[in-house]
Amino acid sequence: MKTRAAVAWEAGKPLTIETIEIGGPKAGEVLVEVMATGICHTDAYTLSGLDSEGKFPAILGHEGAGIVREVGAGVTTLKVGDHVIPLYTPECRNCKSCLSRRTNLCTSIRSTQGQGVMPDGTSRFSCDSGEIFHYMGCSTFANFTVLPEIALAKVREDAPFDKICYIGCGVTTGIGAVIYTAKVWPGANVVVFGLGGIGLNVIQGARMVGADKIIGVDINPAKQEMARKFGMTDFINPKEIGNDKVVQAIVDLTGGGADFSFDATGNTNVMRQALECCHRGWGESIVIGVAEAGKEIATRPFQLVTGRVWKGTAFGGARGRTDVPKIVDWYMEGKINIDDLITHKLKLEEINHGFDLMHEGKSIRSVVVY
Amino acid sequence: MKTRAAVAWEAGKPLTIETIEIGGPKAGEVLVEVMATGICHTDAYTLSGLDSEGKFPAILGHEGAGIVREVGAGVTTLKVGDHVIPLYTPECRNCKSCLSRRTNLCTSIRSTQGQGVMPDGTSRFSCDSGEIFHYMGCSTFANFTVLPEIALAKVREDAPFDKICYIGCGVTTGIGAVIYTAKVWPGANVVVFGLGGIGLNVIQGARMVGADKIIGVDINPAKQEMARKFGMTDFINPKEIGNDKVVQAIVDLTGGGADFSFDATGNTNVMRQALECCHRGWGESIVIGVAEAGKEIATRPFQLVTGRVWKGTAFGGARGRTDVPKIVDWYMEGKINIDDLITHKLKLEEINHGFDLMHEGKSIRSVVVY
Repeated sequence: MKTRAAVAWEAGKPLTIETIEIGGPKAGEVLVEVMATGICHTDAYTLSGLDSEGKFPAILGHEGAGIVREVGAGVTTLKVGDHVIPLYTPECRNCKSCLSRRTNLCTSIRSTQGQGVMPDGTSRFSCDSGEIFHYMGCSTFANFTVLPEIALAKVREDAPFDKICYIGCGVTTGIGAVIYTAKVWPGANVVVFGLGGIGLNVIQGARMVGADKIIGVDINPAKQEMARKFGMTDFINPKEIGNDKVVQAIVDLTGGGADFSFDATGNTNVMRQALECCHRGWGESIVIGVAEAGKEIATRPFQLVTGRVWKGTAFGGARGRTDVPKIVDWYMEGKINIDDLITHKLKLEEINHGFDLMHEGKSIRSVVVY
Repeated sequence: MKTRAAVAWEAGKPLTIETIEIGGPKAGEVLVEVMATGICHTDAYTLSGLDSEGKFPAILGHEGAGIVREVGAGVTTLKVGDHVIPLYTPECRNCKSCLSRRTNLCTSIRSTQGQGVMPDGTSRFSCDSGEIFHYMGCSTFANFTVLPEIALAKVREDAPFDKICYIGCGVTTGIGAVIYTAKVWPGANVVVFGLGGIGLNVIQGARMVGADKIIGVDINPAKQEMARKFGMTDFINPKEIGNDKVVQAIVDLTGGGADFSFDATGNTNVMRQALECCHRGWGESIVIGVAEAGKEIATRPFQLVTGRVWKGTAFGGARGRTDVPKIVDWYMEGKINIDDLITHKLKLEEINHGFDLMHEGKSIRSVVVY
């Protein structure tokens, strides 16, 4: 069959809207009609060409929500009509990682996903000039896409696609980092570096679990208002107080240091500050941001020996099929706010404008509605 | 009263045996007759002058065992005749750190301890030429020493001083790192970098809690025999296979990476290997070794984002008064081996020889018996 899609033909070039061929679902696969998709920094990173694993031509997009339209042989947990969120981190429940009960990083289809193809080694997308690669196992910039059954979270049917698509990446990454990776406790002091879409979700995650102080750090004072709405209690602007005074300011504000800190900037110097502002003895710092290729984090080992812990998180430590439906429930129950984070709604034809809004810092999240 | 002591008059000079003045215990303090003391790398580090916080003249030594000979006003948990192990990490049970239940790093007397004096700001040691500083709150290179009540673990009276003194630092640091900091689980794969006194105690701690593979890494093949006796199952010599192949060798041996790794070398390049050999998704690396001043650890943040955790430990995460008596019990019950680690017994007059043996790599632990 045919589908409309925004195709990334090569690095650094705008996407173009095409009608392309999509093959039906093979065994263990599911055809999904994507109803809405967010545009995320990771899509932009790959499109820029900096992502050494990026392959072209490809259909980008990994933050979607849609409806099952066809299931392949052997699919047992999904049926036509189910509402689903695609998962770039699948959950097979059978691999060493899933069975370890210690990580969400399912490894069952990692190698083929990284190569831009389905688990059988082939692509479902093609056009006259040949095969088009999948992206992060999702390719939500196509109106119809094919995913493995294990890479789809089934969610309730009364949840609006144009909001819950954001749970496919940003919301879960931020809230999950708080809940699943850090396990922030009630009364903890929390610091968030970077008040973009991820940082705001860290903030509302911290508020949801009863954190005490929730300190936001950003060089853009305009971020303050929205962050306070999401639960930030204190704001630090490194440009105002001096970048070298940020750690001490946090130690002072918290009476000794943060119980938990989160880097949502991807800047390795900020990651170091995030570690070093943690409380001696137990403070944990969680790296969320993706750093530029080749950049390294560093600190004196004394920081660790005196009890600070350095961790990271991917997809917020969430197990997609198990945890994503719960986060959708939390949104529907009003426990978390997504509506205010989705600042722009676009048609597929406007998708390049969505990238522009992101690069210009004018959007928190732009969502394409098919 | 008078006591014999090995005095460090200045950095880089041998200790000299002197008879010095020792003041009686003030309120909350305890006079201890030290019966035996180990000689540790940390003593040598401070004596070398590299320790920026080292103060001279001082009475070094922090790994002792002895008998309470007098208690000051208000001391309630110890009485004359009690057998004790001095604690350079005290346990007041009342400060923010102790009450956090998340760290062993009691902060109640940290500042005065770092200044080489008792909590009231004065020293109990003196000689004709003036005051002599305490060291790490212990000064076990004196036959009699004074400590705060909160810095003494009461232990059973049938335990031999010349063995359990080692629990005052090395044994607890290594075993505690496994049990209290890492919480190694039965069946875990463990890697230990550096097979000196600390590394051997990590190995026997890992064996005690039922680890599966216990891999030792050392550039000295002569360390292999003793390490195997303590529970090491596999040995890697970086000089044999090439330093750049160590991480891959561990990943291969463990089928994916270590569940826990420990650095007992103090070398920051080794610390990086220790992190990067950990299993994707959950592997934790624990820094035990003390690095040279100014040295930093570094890695790509991707290592953390994909689930590895970087931690450190001081005094093995053990709460001195609570946990040290248990470790003495484990020794007396034959659960852990200390006897084979104590390779040399010396008189106080031979203490400089003990430092020589350590520097020459001829001893695992030398113990001075008074």
